Amino acid sequence: MTGNGRIRTDLALETTERFAQEHVEIRGVDIQEDVDEEKHIRTTVVKITTENGAKAMGRPQGNYITIEAPDLSMADEDYHREVSGEIARHLRQLIDLDHECSILIVGLGNRAVTADSLGPRVVDNLQMTRHLIREYGLKSLDGNTIHQISGIIPGVMAQTGMETSEIVQGIAAETKPDVVIAVDALAARSIRRLNRTVQITDTGIHPGSGVQNHRTGLTEENLQVKVIGIGVPTVVDAATIVHDSMAHLLDTLEEQEQKEFLEEMITPNLYSMFVTPKDVDETIKYLSFTVSEGLNLAFREV
Amino acid sequence: MTGNGRIRTDLALETTERFAQEHVEIRGVDIQEDVDEEKHIRTTVVKITTENGAKAMGRPQGNYITIEAPDLSMADEDYHREVSGEIARHLRQLIDLDHECSILIVGLGNRAVTADSLGPRVVDNLQMTRHLIREYGLKSLDGNTIHQISGIIPGVMAQTGMETSEIVQGIAAETKPDVVIAVDALAARSIRRLNRTVQITDTGIHPGSGVQNHRTGLTEENLQVKVIGIGVPTVVDAATIVHDSMAHLLDTLEEQEQKEFLEEMITPNLYSMFVTPKDVDETIKYLSFTVSEGLNLAFREV
Amino acid sequence: MTGNGRIRTDLALETTERFAQEHVEIRGVDIQEDVDEEKHIRTTVVKITTENGAKAMGRPQGNYITIEAPDLSMADEDYHREVSGEIARHLRQLIDLDHECSILIVGLGNRAVTADSLGPRVVDNLQMTRHLIREYGLKSLDGNTIHQISGIIPGVMAQTGMETSEIVQGIAAETKPDVVIAVDALAARSIRRLNRTVQITDTGIHPGSGVQNHRTGLTEENLQVKVIGIGVPTVVDAATIVHDSMAHLLDTLEEQEQKEFLEEMITPNLYSMFVTPKDVDETIKYLSFTVSEGLNLAFREV
Amino acid sequence: MTGNGRIRTDLALETTERFAQEHVEIRGVDIQEDVDEEKHIRTTVVKITTENGAKAMGRPQGNYITIEAPDLSMADEDYHREVSGEIARHLRQLIDLDHECSILIVGLGNRAVTADSLGPRVVDNLQMTRHLIREYGLKSLDGNTIHQISGIIPGVMAQTGMETSEIVQGIAAETKPDVVIAVDALAARSIRRLNRTVQITDTGIHPGSGVQNHRTGLTEENLQVKVIGIGVPTVVDAATIVHDSMAHLLDTLEEQEQKEFLEEMITPNLYSMFVTPKDVDETIKYLSFTVSEGLNLAFREV
Repeated sequence: MTGNGRIRTDLALETTERFAQEHVEIRGVDIQEDVDEEKHIRTTVVKITTENGAKAMGRPQGNYITIEAPDLSMADEDYHREVSGEIARHLRQLIDLDHECSILIVGLGNRAVTADSLGPRVVDNLQMTRHLIREYGLKSLDGNTIHQISGIIPGVMAQTGMETSEIVQGIAAETKPDVVIAVDALAARSIRRLNRTVQITDTGIHPGSGVQNHRTGLTEENLQVKVIGIGVPTVVDAATIVHDSMAHLLDTLEEQEQKEFLEEMITPNLYSMFVTPKDVDETIKYLSFTVSEGLNLAFREV
Repeated sequence: MTGNGRIRTDLALETTERFAQEHVEIRGVDIQEDVDEEKHIRTTVVKITTENGAKAMGRPQGNYITIEAPDLSMADEDYHREVSGEIARHLRQLIDLDHECSILIVGLGNRAVTADSLGPRVVDNLQMTRHLIREYGLKSLDGNTIHQISGIIPGVMAQTGMETSEIVQGIAAETKPDVVIAVDALAARSIRRLNRTVQITDTGIHPGSGVQNHRTGLTEENLQVKVIGIGVPTVVDAATIVHDSMAHLLDTLEEQEQKEFLEEMITPNLYSMFVTPKDVDETIKYLSFTVSEGLNLAFREV
Repeated sequence: MTGNGRIRTDLALETTERFAQEHVEIRGVDIQEDVDEEKHIRTTVVKITTENGAKAMGRPQGNYITIEAPDLSMADEDYHREVSGEIARHLRQLIDLDHECSILIVGLGNRAVTADSLGPRVVDNLQMTRHLIREYGLKSLDGNTIHQISGIIPGVMAQTGMETSEIVQGIAAETKPDVVIAVDALAARSIRRLNRTVQITDTGIHPGSGVQNHRTGLTEENLQVKVIGIGVPTVVDAATIVHDSMAHLLDTLEEQEQKEFLEEMITPNLYSMFVTPKDVDETIKYLSFTVSEGLNLAFREV
Repeated sequence: MTGNGRIRTDLALETTERFAQEHVEIRGVDIQEDVDEEKHIRTTVVKITTENGAKAMGRPQGNYITIEAPDLSMADEDYHREVSGEIARHLRQLIDLDHECSILIVGLGNRAVTADSLGPRVVDNLQMTRHLIREYGLKSLDGNTIHQISGIIPGVMAQTGMETSEIVQGIAAETKPDVVIAVDALAARSIRRLNRTVQITDTGIHPGSGVQNHRTGLTEENLQVKVIGIGVPTVVDAATIVHDSMAHLLDTLEEQEQKEFLEEMITPNLYSMFVTPKDVDETIKYLSFTVSEGLNLAFREV
């Protein structure tokens, strides 16, 4: 397969599919798929368990849960509730929410670019409790949660002059949450996945991911606290679209010819562009409710 | 040339370029180019003067002024002022602004989709005067304008359940402006033109144009009043990108083969997607100031 | 009682209370109160049935339904649902929704002033159907509604240079709805009513009401179609607050003394100010969901 | 003077005026006034130089510069430029900007409440440079500044579950700016000062100030770095309005009678309300440009 390095996907699932296409099995990578025909939801859990697996996948060791829900970009409230329930279920497997827990939700991305505004909108929709519990105690709440929820929308580098990781590191060092959950809009490799896929991972957010790429990651290593990443692919890189449309053609060329051909085809400024549906406003509105409702469900006591 | 019908550009200039590429000259279409080397601005006036010209261009008879300003997406205030001046100069040629005039500015597009929010933002930036002049007379103003300026941001069909043309027709019939100016984000055929081109035309806005296409146009025919269209290309249709990247390849195929090849390459949902730069938020901010300042300059008395 | 003319309330209920305080009964005004202790909701229907009643009340003949729900500014979803149900019930009494009906919802007020943004936000939350039914027929919908819903957010005069009534008249003349529903933020006389009261009336919206006062009304008389007004008081005029705090004191003075005293106390610019709670952002968010859900419920077939 | 404790002003100048009214001079407080008749701007510098002065003024020792510009809420660009120049001049006296300096601008307040959105909007308008200088060096800039500018809009406690001071402390500890500048909307005591006054102080932001009061301050003491506060009064507390309107009356009562009278007059929920002009949207738009332009001017090399 050509152009590996240049063509980007933020979804672990898409990387495994590429290997599957090529009938390659990778040691250190376990894949488990679960289809709920009735609910119309497919969940795939990719576990990267060894250094070798991590290298092959181009991703750190850990769990990558992908929830595929084809009707996610439609306005069906009941269906969205199912998906929220699925998100909550997986979060509760990754985080111990049986005991009081302090959780910082980070809404990554750029509120001013519709396709990149998922993270900020999810945080907008959440009910914060940390300040209430600290000031008035648990009894001040309605009894639905015991967790100290806090949230921040750090903005992007052009807006702040700071790396997102600097901002979140500072806040995490000061407020000492038990877990950070970072929500972000992602780039998929395939249009087919846009706005109908949720990826949850316990490896955090990595450099080079997101719509407007992060230069530094949000990981346990640099935040000193467990980091869960929740992402929804809302764009495809423009270069990917062109690349993929020529895939068959490329297969007929030698490697050097491929490289030259691609350099001619894909003008450099195409790499700073993204592809997104025209009704991205509606889609992001639904998706942000679904994800924030998933978080709300997870945080409520059982 | 293949796929003419499917590949869309809202810029008359791009259509003339296609003919130029093919060394075809069209009767009924006059093209005049003016390059200001110092100001780094190129202005092209395309005049469609006959039915034949209109047919060949796929556009109604009238004037199409294209201002190309390569640095328009950068944050250089002085340069933007030059472009605003150029917009104002051409508007004053298309509209008689020497006498009191009542002008309705329509901000087309969808405020909630960044790439499509140019029109709404331009209207946000304008100073309305119609209500002041009607209530308190011209003396109530600061002496900079004699024109009754009004403005509306109609929203898109998914938000209103109405055609934009129905809304604007109703308001124009009720408030009886002398001229309507409709501002809209456009689709270009080429990435090279994005966010650095302003098209001004006295033929209004036509069905099928805009980011989220208009089904009915805003023209003198249906508004019963002169309509000026001001557009800035902020997106390229996703299908166009793929199509163009395969242009050379397509040239080697027979027509039927081309058609089949394209149908396979370009999945239907690609037609409901657009390509736009990742920093579209910054760009739209600058562009909307430049266009609204152009309008302000034009409306101020000389 | 002094200063009648200057102290403003948009709520018919508050006017009846003033008469009640003075133990005056008015012919031509029927008042019926219904308290649902369990749901914690009080509904009062004021019917103005004669010219005399209209004069005494300073309001046109018609029905004024006031739903008082003290917990409306709190984040209790179930309670809000009750209030939405109550709004829907009364709307179905005022509008015949058993047969296909075309309804234009007008979101009055200024989106850029939080306390005045109720109308625009309610329209934001609604699902429009008119364009779908007209293009694809009733079968294109999910079967929940048979009504053609359209909506417009006209903006305020400083933003458009036009009277709101001009805009709505034009659109209504063009799109010919059977009913117009105008949603607006209102001024109450008493802080006690803020953000916990919904007024529904079949007399439309009248000049001088709203947060940023309307100069012309939206009534059956000028729109040529039935107009329902839905309002929620979100502000109190600043002059009212001062006036009321001095009510007892004023009672001890002669009429001329009162007038002089008030002129001294209430500086003119106080009349261009309003009072609103500091958490107006949260409140408006809940209220707009409650009202739009009320509309959604009313429009769905039984 | 009555009700000292309850009636709030964020302006040092208003506190000095109260003393002036009572013909009291305070040791440890220097006041210098400078009126520029031509520019229509009055600047007052209050220096609190001793512990005694601080106690009397209810404010920490330091400099409080108040720029009064009566036409500040009008749309006169030239006048706003004068005021921006005045802000820049004073900032350059408080901060040493002759050498490279790293400055973090904090936009305090709540973007979702118009009257409280000054801080966020000012930061929106600024050009950040820190990330560019750190990545590409000074030569990457246009030569207008040598300073590393960064900015954050932390949000309010209800949105984040964290004290603003926690967020800013964390970020300051991580990014180590030389100076923090905090911009905030303030509460004035008098309607006369609203939206026409800018206060600059080198003592930071203190608990209990702002539109939605800060519980903890942003001061050199808790940030370990110099803190400049820039504030514009955009609201008056609702209780203040009522209190002041009864001032003369209160003077005739004994202290205990005053207290009882006030408790009866001013209902508790009035303390959670504010008074602001109906055209607050326009005003905040102009003010935020004026303040951000003041910052831009100050940061540009002389």
